[in-house]
Amino acid sequence: MSYRPETAAFRSFAAARARFSPDYGPRDFLEECLAALEGQEGAVKAFVSFDLIAARAAADAAADRWRQGRPLSELDGLPFAVKDCFDVAGLPTRVNSPVFDNASPAAFDAAHVAALRAAGAYVLGKTVTTEFTMALPGPTRNPWNTDHTPGGSSSGSAAAVAAGMLPLATGSQVRGSVIRPASICGVPGYKPTFGALNVQGGVDPSPGLNHLGLLGATFRDIWESASIIARGVGGDPGYRPFRPGPFPEPKQPTRLARQYTIGWEKTDARSKAAFEDWLSHLQDAGVEIVEPEASPEFAAYEAATARAQEFFFDLFWEIRWPWLAVRQAHPAQFSHVMHRHLDSAAALTLDDYRAALDRRDALRALHRALSGKVDGFVTLAHIGPGQHGDPEVGTPWYNDASSAVGAPTVNLPVLSVDGLPLGVQLMGFEHEDAALFPVAQHLMSLL
Amino acid sequence: MSYRPETAAFRSFAAARARFSPDYGPRDFLEECLAALEGQEGAVKAFVSFDLIAARAAADAAADRWRQGRPLSELDGLPFAVKDCFDVAGLPTRVNSPVFDNASPAAFDAAHVAALRAAGAYVLGKTVTTEFTMALPGPTRNPWNTDHTPGGSSSGSAAAVAAGMLPLATGSQVRGSVIRPASICGVPGYKPTFGALNVQGGVDPSPGLNHLGLLGATFRDIWESASIIARGVGGDPGYRPFRPGPFPEPKQPTRLARQYTIGWEKTDARSKAAFEDWLSHLQDAGVEIVEPEASPEFAAYEAATARAQEFFFDLFWEIRWPWLAVRQAHPAQFSHVMHRHLDSAAALTLDDYRAALDRRDALRALHRALSGKVDGFVTLAHIGPGQHGDPEVGTPWYNDASSAVGAPTVNLPVLSVDGLPLGVQLMGFEHEDAALFPVAQHLMSLL
Repeated sequence: MSYRPETAAFRSFAAARARFSPDYGPRDFLEECLAALEGQEGAVKAFVSFDLIAARAAADAAADRWRQGRPLSELDGLPFAVKDCFDVAGLPTRVNSPVFDNASPAAFDAAHVAALRAAGAYVLGKTVTTEFTMALPGPTRNPWNTDHTPGGSSSGSAAAVAAGMLPLATGSQVRGSVIRPASICGVPGYKPTFGALNVQGGVDPSPGLNHLGLLGATFRDIWESASIIARGVGGDPGYRPFRPGPFPEPKQPTRLARQYTIGWEKTDARSKAAFEDWLSHLQDAGVEIVEPEASPEFAAYEAATARAQEFFFDLFWEIRWPWLAVRQAHPAQFSHVMHRHLDSAAALTLDDYRAALDRRDALRALHRALSGKVDGFVTLAHIGPGQHGDPEVGTPWYNDASSAVGAPTVNLPVLSVDGLPLGVQLMGFEHEDAALFPVAQHLMSLL
Repeated sequence: MSYRPETAAFRSFAAARARFSPDYGPRDFLEECLAALEGQEGAVKAFVSFDLIAARAAADAAADRWRQGRPLSELDGLPFAVKDCFDVAGLPTRVNSPVFDNASPAAFDAAHVAALRAAGAYVLGKTVTTEFTMALPGPTRNPWNTDHTPGGSSSGSAAAVAAGMLPLATGSQVRGSVIRPASICGVPGYKPTFGALNVQGGVDPSPGLNHLGLLGATFRDIWESASIIARGVGGDPGYRPFRPGPFPEPKQPTRLARQYTIGWEKTDARSKAAFEDWLSHLQDAGVEIVEPEASPEFAAYEAATARAQEFFFDLFWEIRWPWLAVRQAHPAQFSHVMHRHLDSAAALTLDDYRAALDRRDALRALHRALSGKVDGFVTLAHIGPGQHGDPEVGTPWYNDASSAVGAPTVNLPVLSVDGLPLGVQLMGFEHEDAALFPVAQHLMSLL
C-alpha cells in the first residue's frame, strides 16, 4: 500500500529558501512554479486570473532584498494564490457567480492578502471556487486524474498546490471547503480555530461560520504564512488570534481519539481499510488510539458529532441577508442549487437558528470536556478519493462536526486509494493550534 | 427640579397607531413628523439626505393596508432614519468622511433596514454621524439649545428624535455612540447585548466592538423595532439574537447597583446632585441601591469598570485593516483626529490586542458573577448636559465599561441640568434584554 502518490512534486517555499544563494533566489523559485503552471493549467484550470508580469517584478524585488540581506520577512518572495471569494485590490471578486459578472475591481486587499503582501509575499493569481462557495462547481479538475473533482469549494487553491504551481493558496471553510479539497487533491490543509485568522474582505455568505484556511506544499509553509497573517491582521474582530512563533518541532502524540461521525457508514470499503491500516501503524509506533466507547465522555462526544448534520444547515439562517434580497432582484443569476439553499434558509425561523446555536454550543462543550485527555482526534477527511457524481465537489460528512466544533483541523495527505489521494483529518482543541502542528508533522514523517 | 424638559414633543408611532381611524393614519402621522422637520431641520441639521416623495408614497401605501385591516406588521407605516454609517439601497454611505465623497450608491439595504422595510416601515432619510463614527463631528446641533453639541457619533439620529421629527432612528455604539447622544439630546436610547441585533451592512471600522443601537420616542417604539429586526435578520452572525415578543409591562426593580466608573470624578457638581437626588427618589419608592462597598464582588466589579479605559483603546487594533492601507493611499482625506486614532492603532501589537481581550473578558466575568444579585446597574449616562469644547461630541467615560461588558444598556432621559437634558444609564445582564425594558419603563414612569 502506497501512503502517498509518488508523483507528488509540491513546491515548498521554506525548502527553496533554505537553498537561496547568489545563484538561486525568489525569481528562480517563481520560474519553477510557472513551469508547472504552464505545463498543467490547461488541464487543471485552477485559476480565474493571473498577472505574470507583476509576479515576476515582485519576485525580482524580493530577490534584491534577499541579496542585500534585508528580506521583509521569511516569506519575502513567496508567490501565493487567493480563493476568488476574497478581495485582491484591482481585481473583481466573482465567486463563480454571474451575480458578480459586472463587479467593480476591489478597492483594497482582503485582510490576509494585505498581511502577506506587507511581508513581501505576492499574489500570483486568484483561484476557482464554487458558486457563492457553496453551490455549482467551477471548471477545475483534479491534477491526479483530470476525470475527477478537485473537491470544493477551495477547488482551484487545492489543485494549484497539488500541481506544484505554488507553495501556498488561501481557502475558506464553512463546512468542509478546505479540508475536503485538501484530502481529494492530497495536499496539507489547515483550518484554524474559529476566528483565529482574519477572514475579512470579500464575499462571505456566512461570516458566523466561515474560517480562513490555508493549503500549502508543507505544514511549514502553512505555519509560517499563518504567523505572518496573525502578526499583520490578527483574527476575526473580537476573537482570539492565532499565536505566531517559530515552526514547532515534530512530536509523537501519546493518545489520539478516533472519530466516526456520519462519514464512516458512507465510506467505501477500500478507504476504510486504508484508514484502519494507518491506525494500526500508529499503534505499532506506540500511539494509543482511544475508541469512543473508552469512556462515557468520549461516547457522548461521538454521539453528538454523528448528529451534527441535524443542526448544521439551520446555522445558514445567516445567508438570508442580503442574499434573499439579491435573489429577488436577480433570480436568473442563481443556480438551482443556490435557489435550493436560499429556499431552505428562507424557511428557517429565528427559533430554528437559536436552537442550532444551542446544539452547536453543546457539541463544543462536549469537545472541550475532553481537553487534556487526548492529543487530538483522527478520522478520514473525506468518504473516499475524488469522485464523479453528486455532489460533484464532495461531501461534508466528516467535516461538519469539526467545523461546528470550531477547533483547529488539518488534512494529513497520507493515504492513497486506487492511485488517488485520501487524507486523514486531525483535529485539536480550540486556541491550541500550536499544539496541533507538531503532531501533524510527526504523523506526516511517520510513513 | 425638573426631571424632563417641558418642551419635549416626542413623536411615538405606537401612540399614534393607537389612534389610527378612518380619519387618522400613517400619512397623517408622517405629515406631523414633516412639520417638525420643516420647522427645525434648518437649525438642527440632523439629516444628510431625505426623499419626501418616496416617504409620502410609502405612508400612503401603509395607510391603505391599515384601512384594509391588513398591515404588514405593527410597524407598518413607521418612518425611520438611518445613521449614515449603514447602507440604504440607492444612497451612498459617507460616514462624514471625504474618503466616501465619490462612493457609489449602496446595492442593498443594511440588515436592520431590510428587516424594518419588509415590515412596512420606511426610510425617511439618513442622519449625520461623525467621521468614521469616531472622529470629526458633523454639522448637527442640539435641539434643546443649538449652541450645544447633540453628542455623537449617532448625532443626527438623536437630534431628529429629540426634535420630534421621527419616532425612530438607528445608531451604532462602539464606546458610547448611542447612549451618549441619547443622554445629551434627552431621548430613550438602547444598546442591545453585544451581537443581539444585526449590525451588518455599511462602513464599520470596528465590527468586533460595534453594536446596532436604537433611539426612539418611547421605549415601546424601540422594543417593537428591535423585535421586527430580530425576527427578520436576527443578531450578528454566530451571536445569540434578541428575543422578540410583546412589549413587557413595567416592573419596579427590587435592587439596583450603583456604578461610578471613571465618569463620576469628571462630573460637574450640579449633575452629581441631580443624580443623587434621583437615587433618593428611588430609595423613597422602595428600591434598594447597592453601593460598590456592599460586598467584595461588587467592589471588584467597580474597581474593574473604573479601569476600562486602560484597555479599551487597545481593542481598536481592529481598525488597522483596511483603514491603514486606505490612509496610505489617501492621507489628505483623514482629519487630524482620525490620523491620531490610526497612528495609535498602528503602534499596537498583536500582544496588546490579546491582553485587551483578556482584560475585557475578565471584566465580563466579574459582571456575570453579579447576575441575580441585582436587577440592573445605574450611573449617569454622561458627565453632564451637552457641552461646548473638546471632545466636541462628548466623552465616553461612563459608557466604556458598559460597552466592554457587552450587556444591554438604555439611556433613561429623566434628568435636567441647567435646562438641558441629562440621562441615567441603566445596564442589565447579557442576553437579558427583555428584563431591562420593564425596569426602564418603570423608572421612566416614576417621575
